[in-house]
Amino acid sequence: MNKRLNILMFSGDYDKALAALILANTARELEADVTMFFAFWGLCLLRDPEKVSMEDKSAYEKMFGMMTPKGPEALPLSKMNFAGLGKKMLLDMMDDDSAPHLSDFLSGARKKGVKFYGCKLSMEIMGITREELIPELEVVEAKTYLQDALESDMQLFI
Amino acid sequence: MNKRLNILMFSGDYDKALAALILANTARELEADVTMFFAFWGLCLLRDPEKVSMEDKSAYEKMFGMMTPKGPEALPLSKMNFAGLGKKMLLDMMDDDSAPHLSDFLSGARKKGVKFYGCKLSMEIMGITREELIPELEVVEAKTYLQDALESDMQLFI
Amino acid sequence: MNKRLNILMFSGDYDKALAALILANTARELEADVTMFFAFWGLCLLRDPEKVSMEDKSAYEKMFGMMTPKGPEALPLSKMNFAGLGKKMLLDMMDDDSAPHLSDFLSGARKKGVKFYGCKLSMEIMGITREELIPELEVVEAKTYLQDALESDMQLFI
Repeated sequence: MNKRLNILMFSGDYDKALAALILANTARELEADVTMFFAFWGLCLLRDPEKVSMEDKSAYEKMFGMMTPKGPEALPLSKMNFAGLGKKMLLDMMDDDSAPHLSDFLSGARKKGVKFYGCKLSMEIMGITREELIPELEVVEAKTYLQDALESDMQLFI
Repeated sequence: MNKRLNILMFSGDYDKALAALILANTARELEADVTMFFAFWGLCLLRDPEKVSMEDKSAYEKMFGMMTPKGPEALPLSKMNFAGLGKKMLLDMMDDDSAPHLSDFLSGARKKGVKFYGCKLSMEIMGITREELIPELEVVEAKTYLQDALESDMQLFI
Repeated sequence: MNKRLNILMFSGDYDKALAALILANTARELEADVTMFFAFWGLCLLRDPEKVSMEDKSAYEKMFGMMTPKGPEALPLSKMNFAGLGKKMLLDMMDDDSAPHLSDFLSGARKKGVKFYGCKLSMEIMGITREELIPELEVVEAKTYLQDALESDMQLFI
């Protein structure tokens, strides 16, 4: 039976999401099963910049939707972001080493069969609709995440 | 034998504490045993706002006690707190969805028999006394936490 | 067979690194095997302040090297750092309780046989060279970390 890795993606930071997705991709290469559960700020990573919607949202939800990052490449750094300058510097350094960007690792994870769960409660509170997120995402409650996580060999909160 | 979930609650952020306590409550509903070990900033979550004491504290400990949040509802957001405005917005959005607040999930965890451990060293350094924290908390050393965690099915650092 | 603890040290914060190294030391005292994998900001903790080098680095890498903390005692707090004032306060409070500092716990972990892994990709991107880090560090890819972590009894992302 395959090993199982389970990641709770809570943070909406570029660097932390990069770490999480590198681990998800690498685990799939090692033939482990991988589940990622996106909650709170982590959901911003899965927003499709082309499909951000303002329909059927309360005033707060609209404001929140505008203030939060739209998709992987829009996420800030957890440290030294400096209004985007620090992040630009990091991206340039990644390019110097021909390292893929966050959106590449996200595409990789989708192609490699990582299981994507989205937190129902977070989506309701933050007013993020199903249509704004990547199509393969399955919207579940915390219970479904926990049942998967408790049976996994490894769990990380990122 | 029951599954076991172990959470090290290090952060003192409203949103992260919310995630941790939602998981703790949900795990109890799934009949898993749950231990939460509160260290550093995480201890602020368990302070009883009515019982914050200034007695027998050094000048630094008093200052630290005044500068840190007093109880669950006083915690800031990890992101977009904006001096409390962002947090107020999130709480209003939670109310719109009739979602319980952090203090409700804390009460739930206490009623459902989550085991509460407090980090002895953190309390000594930060000058937080036993009397300031919820009564069912057991003050233990890192060793006790680790012995529990190493035997658990799942461990998270939040 | 010994229990195994695996820590991914991602954060470059004094308080979080303190928590991680207290756990690593305590786990060794409980005769558990401990692996720590240092990635991204976490690598700053292992820099030797005497050996920070500017040779063979791009302009960005030099700038990054200067802006990031040099060694354990240079790390900021994750909260209430207040340009170093909050950290000084915490260190004074630790001294009042005769609590060891981060560098002491790092020395302890090195003496007690904690296994130190450094993330190859992070080092390449950030331009951190092997010579700037503690000598016992083994530079590995994410794959090596994951293989160790998936076989461990407990994994934390800090």
